[in-house]
Amino acid sequence: MRTWRVVLVGFGTVGRGVAERLRASAGELESLGIAPRIVGVLDPRLGSVAAPSGLDPASLLQAAEGEGDLTQVPGALACEGGVAGVREIQADVVFELTPTNLRDGQPGLDHVRAALENGRHVSTTNKGPVALAWPELRDLAAANNVQLRCEGTVMSGTPLLNVCEAGLAGAGVRAVRGILNGTCNYILSRMEEGMAYDDALNEAQRLGYAETDPSGDVEGWDAAAKVAILGNLVLGGSLSLADVERGGIDSVDLDAVQNAVEGGKRLRLVGSVERGESAVTNARVTLEELPQDDPLAAVSGAGNLLTFETDALGAVSVAGPGAGRAETGHALVADLIAIHRAELS
Amino acid sequence: MRTWRVVLVGFGTVGRGVAERLRASAGELESLGIAPRIVGVLDPRLGSVAAPSGLDPASLLQAAEGEGDLTQVPGALACEGGVAGVREIQADVVFELTPTNLRDGQPGLDHVRAALENGRHVSTTNKGPVALAWPELRDLAAANNVQLRCEGTVMSGTPLLNVCEAGLAGAGVRAVRGILNGTCNYILSRMEEGMAYDDALNEAQRLGYAETDPSGDVEGWDAAAKVAILGNLVLGGSLSLADVERGGIDSVDLDAVQNAVEGGKRLRLVGSVERGESAVTNARVTLEELPQDDPLAAVSGAGNLLTFETDALGAVSVAGPGAGRAETGHALVADLIAIHRAELS
Repeated sequence: MRTWRVVLVGFGTVGRGVAERLRASAGELESLGIAPRIVGVLDPRLGSVAAPSGLDPASLLQAAEGEGDLTQVPGALACEGGVAGVREIQADVVFELTPTNLRDGQPGLDHVRAALENGRHVSTTNKGPVALAWPELRDLAAANNVQLRCEGTVMSGTPLLNVCEAGLAGAGVRAVRGILNGTCNYILSRMEEGMAYDDALNEAQRLGYAETDPSGDVEGWDAAAKVAILGNLVLGGSLSLADVERGGIDSVDLDAVQNAVEGGKRLRLVGSVERGESAVTNARVTLEELPQDDPLAAVSGAGNLLTFETDALGAVSVAGPGAGRAETGHALVADLIAIHRAELS
Repeated sequence: MRTWRVVLVGFGTVGRGVAERLRASAGELESLGIAPRIVGVLDPRLGSVAAPSGLDPASLLQAAEGEGDLTQVPGALACEGGVAGVREIQADVVFELTPTNLRDGQPGLDHVRAALENGRHVSTTNKGPVALAWPELRDLAAANNVQLRCEGTVMSGTPLLNVCEAGLAGAGVRAVRGILNGTCNYILSRMEEGMAYDDALNEAQRLGYAETDPSGDVEGWDAAAKVAILGNLVLGGSLSLADVERGGIDSVDLDAVQNAVEGGKRLRLVGSVERGESAVTNARVTLEELPQDDPLAAVSGAGNLLTFETDALGAVSVAGPGAGRAETGHALVADLIAIHRAELS
């Protein structure tokens, strides 16, 4: 049995989802020889705490959702937060779970840097660092002989990045293409039913799919970050967000959506990236008119679907959730398992 | 770099697909630290040959498709075939690629037993041994400290069994449900377009989807074997083929197919199996009338699709090829990578 000392940076929805999934999968993790121990939780609002002997996930959840004060958790010692906490708490893995910021990647980027520099493996759900600074972080991880994983950045915990390692290695993946933003797909699906863009967006906001400032979704930033991540992780590229041609749905009109339907087609916001002769190329997010038998056209509502084009298998598609507390929480558990396996090998 | 000495038992379509994929993925395998070496090929028709220093895949393919005599391959030494060959050739892994026989699993079952007893890892595309004798073979592998893998038995090389290990461990897989037989799905799809059963079957035979004796497909035996394999490998069961309730499409009539379409539904042959309170349960292959928004209803033609029902992620679906030379050949490459990784860990 190997004990994995874990620090959680951020204890919002995703952090709590992780705590829940670590509890729910404890038996399965034990059968794999993995004993996770939460030795620190750093949160700017709830407080930052450490405990070398481990913090109970149920108590952390109770404190977060009750008084909102993590220092109330039995055994918890108040400690510095942010980069200082990441540096100082003795741990094996850092789960970086702060919100994505696609302008400069902060504060996540500095957390990831600090973790890697101090010899901790990292699993992150934060798209910023991986979409903006992959070559630097990849090299920093290699130089410190640790792993940087980010299953949760694309389609939450749906197995994608780790699947490529486990099942598509050797298959010759040539390209990746997918419906990567559930909010945009939900809005387009509602417009197909006749709803105006503004009404569909309002509805998506009411349902919690879209944020108050929806620009990250509807202008294609979120999907573009995912395209950069897929190009880097699946195809071995060195892309940054700026290398991705970016379109959105914010200027689409109802007629265009409905004309597509009348012509037996579907308008979809598609993210795609290919392996070129010498480099990863054609990274883009574009509004495409798809024939109905395209697997991407069949995705309605807030679902996500990704298709890998391969030499050996032709097209292989994976469909699954794009968001959610348990769904994203599972991504960190999956990364921990992958880190455990790869470190032993 | 680790050299993996491989014996191929059977050098028909799948064996040749393996040889091609080992060539095509040589660079990627090397980057993973894997150097495969074909030290034996045993085939009842083409001859059985061994070569401790390795046989060239291109020369094997040329000999098989030219004179049909493997002893012509440079460096090849004639040797005993079948069980004797499996025992005697010094190897690390045996690829068991003989045709599936769901009555008694032979000759594949004895090949797999001999390989495991002699301390070789096994990857097989043969459904017989795994569907009929899993508990015995699983225990035999464990007793000899080797791995038994069979990615190619379900949906050819589409990542499924290895994905469960890599990405769904910890997610709480409760059930598996899928379109597992491309021939039946092709016939049902054609009947939806108005073609009679016999005509659709004849067409499937002409296209090479169905065999001269189609009973293995249309009576549900093939899908039932896959359900047993999924129950065993994904859900940890101890099923045999006889534990799977089996239905087929051989008694379906055109009216039933077309009535379903008119009612906005689709008739599909669905394989499914669940984790029960104390055991794996409800293993069955049945003709089901599915609503059109069921992901399984969307599979037309000879495609395959499998849905995992999980606690953490809800439904995750994987769609990909169900057959084919390169497609199945890749399964053995994927298993070799999985064996390599797991052996190191």
